[in-house]
Amino acid sequence: MSALRTSLARLSAPRWSGAVSRARVLPAVRTQIRTYKADPARDAMTGEIIQLPDIDSNLTKITLTDSPKKRPASSKLVFGHTFTDHMLTIPWNSATGWANPEIRPYGPLDLDPSCTVFHYAFTLFEGMKAYRNADGTVRLFRPDKNMARMNRSAARIALPTFDGAELTELIKKLVMVDKDWIPQDKGFSLYIRPTLIATQKALGVGPSSDALLFVICCPVGPYYASGFKPVQLLATTKYVRATPGGTGSYKLGANYAPGIVPQKEAMAEGYSQNLWLLGDEHALTEVGTMNLFVAFKQADGSVELCTPPLDDVVLPGVTRDSVLEVARDHASGKTPIPGLPADIKVSERKLIMKDLVDAEKNGTLLEVFGTGTAAIISSVDKIGYEGRDLIIPTGPAGMGAISKAMLDRIVGIQTGEIEHEWSVVANDVKI
Amino acid sequence: MSALRTSLARLSAPRWSGAVSRARVLPAVRTQIRTYKADPARDAMTGEIIQLPDIDSNLTKITLTDSPKKRPASSKLVFGHTFTDHMLTIPWNSATGWANPEIRPYGPLDLDPSCTVFHYAFTLFEGMKAYRNADGTVRLFRPDKNMARMNRSAARIALPTFDGAELTELIKKLVMVDKDWIPQDKGFSLYIRPTLIATQKALGVGPSSDALLFVICCPVGPYYASGFKPVQLLATTKYVRATPGGTGSYKLGANYAPGIVPQKEAMAEGYSQNLWLLGDEHALTEVGTMNLFVAFKQADGSVELCTPPLDDVVLPGVTRDSVLEVARDHASGKTPIPGLPADIKVSERKLIMKDLVDAEKNGTLLEVFGTGTAAIISSVDKIGYEGRDLIIPTGPAGMGAISKAMLDRIVGIQTGEIEHEWSVVANDVKI
Repeated sequence: MSALRTSLARLSAPRWSGAVSRARVLPAVRTQIRTYKADPARDAMTGEIIQLPDIDSNLTKITLTDSPKKRPASSKLVFGHTFTDHMLTIPWNSATGWANPEIRPYGPLDLDPSCTVFHYAFTLFEGMKAYRNADGTVRLFRPDKNMARMNRSAARIALPTFDGAELTELIKKLVMVDKDWIPQDKGFSLYIRPTLIATQKALGVGPSSDALLFVICCPVGPYYASGFKPVQLLATTKYVRATPGGTGSYKLGANYAPGIVPQKEAMAEGYSQNLWLLGDEHALTEVGTMNLFVAFKQADGSVELCTPPLDDVVLPGVTRDSVLEVARDHASGKTPIPGLPADIKVSERKLIMKDLVDAEKNGTLLEVFGTGTAAIISSVDKIGYEGRDLIIPTGPAGMGAISKAMLDRIVGIQTGEIEHEWSVVANDVKI
Repeated sequence: MSALRTSLARLSAPRWSGAVSRARVLPAVRTQIRTYKADPARDAMTGEIIQLPDIDSNLTKITLTDSPKKRPASSKLVFGHTFTDHMLTIPWNSATGWANPEIRPYGPLDLDPSCTVFHYAFTLFEGMKAYRNADGTVRLFRPDKNMARMNRSAARIALPTFDGAELTELIKKLVMVDKDWIPQDKGFSLYIRPTLIATQKALGVGPSSDALLFVICCPVGPYYASGFKPVQLLATTKYVRATPGGTGSYKLGANYAPGIVPQKEAMAEGYSQNLWLLGDEHALTEVGTMNLFVAFKQADGSVELCTPPLDDVVLPGVTRDSVLEVARDHASGKTPIPGLPADIKVSERKLIMKDLVDAEKNGTLLEVFGTGTAAIISSVDKIGYEGRDLIIPTGPAGMGAISKAMLDRIVGIQTGEIEHEWSVVANDVKI
């Protein structure tokens, strides 16, 4: 990336400062206030288009707000209700490819009512977090995983794919532009929401000719503001979240709206979320909008840490993958984790409700927890199933030993307390 | 409805004329250019809100465009690409209920990028048609069915329900305001798209605090512009459209985007749409975005006209229901239809691929057709299944006798050529 090719307008926002010095940024402002248009690659002989432009972070136009919002006190933050001053937008068209990225003041999208996102649920998204240290270091967590999954989701509904490394660079730029919005309080972070929607102005059911990728950010507090609160699940056979041949393993909007009524029904019965089952054997798949882990005590005294296989129905969660890798590296002796049982076996295998019912009866059900970007680790202390409640130990602190060790390890990596390749520093990005 | 309570602004659009005379409308314009606000019903003693305002067509504000668009020639119309001059919008909020309806110039929606429709596929829609006769009569077809289904879809994803009769009145108003857009050419109509989206400006996964119901309209040509063209289906077991416990029987946006890639794959193999199968027996469910009918010759010489039962996986199509009712009234002798076999049995029953394979082998497979609002009846002449093609007779005109008789009957009712309670005249609506 070359700072020379970056255009930056209205550098008047008073909050602008940081690791990228003004001196390095300002020359670009003065000379480059214009829109770049990426051109498609053409065959030198025939002039035919051979490749449409991909996302190019070098061509970013940055327009800073001249009316920055007042930032609420960290203690007042409600998840997903407060947005930072800027957003990233990148339009796409099937004939011209990805247009130039723009970082601009957060504001409404102006969309024709015929846009296909409004009619056929052409939408997909990611959830990521950025952490800021006392020394100003801003870190993302495994952004490559989100980029790969976002591309996989896009391909599933015929939306355009893109260079994930370039979108990561753009997210770094956006996060650095709005870095003062990242609370430094312990457990606080910036939630980042990349979204891709179809914007074709026509009602036919078919691939969209147009799309818009945008990224918005919200400062968020710790999921457990006042200590760990275990969640209670209602195992449902009335509703099915995902089925083989469906879209459950993709992060599509289409997987979410249908889960609200089941969740309301679970809450009306005194549970906080659904445990999604599948098939006649009542195989466990996911928990609310999280992946699921179960720890069993084995006959030989060892522990089995289990999660359902992805197959075609489980979302490939970044936290799920991280828990698996942390546990496997511990089990192999590569990176032992304090607090984890020494003798642990890690399985991705089919789990059915009978496994849990039997283990509860035998006293071998150690822990159940959900994993996701928002909560990271969320303990489960009760599962309503076929008219009775399975009770799951969580310990006096509201979180079992395995859950707690996992949470500490992953948060340690996310915040940079533990040096790890999963933590990606954003400060060195060119703006 | 009282014309007095209707406000109408900017009556300058040159195309304004019609069954509702200027004389009856103009006084309202002069005196009523203001926004009405429906108030919630309150308990007379406590002042507590006991019922939030429902949709009220009497409170409609109409603002006509002062720059009407040029209407394209009927022959140039592409389905869903041309929109009329006006649209209907009705916002909803969980604390204040349905706001006043507004008919206003067609234009973009201004939505915050955090709106839940962009992230979690909170969207549902309907498809309806209006026909205009030479004498100026404008007709809707069974709007009560669409309203009932739209409410059912809304409840499924925790969006607000409403008085369907009131929305029908509003659709009549919109259609009459834009009635000059309805082509009078034979087979042409106005496609009407009521849509309901969630507009809460917050990322939490939960019921939306805000919603927007809007209706847009497009003039459309006959589905078979140059004679009946049968479609070719690829029976798919790789992708599943709907599953018990899922949302396949609701008209949610979420059911549509996931079907595009399967359709592209079918087209790459030389078929036009997918035949959606379910379960190990390969039960037939739907065709592309249409319901499915199969006609078999029985051993006794009679005909069985079959469609899969709705159960939890098949959309309750208005055309599907109409075909069933027309066929049953014919079979019972109540309303005999010319061209239909006298001895016909009508079944909603499970249909599996083996039924079709056997019938093709025995020569008892008479017809296969899809039903939907766009095409009404769409003949099928080929089904690719497990590596070979089932060939289905369609006759020299590209449409079998049963399909043709159904198409003629339903179009006759829709256009008013056949007097029927299903056809609802819009001209008498108060504007």
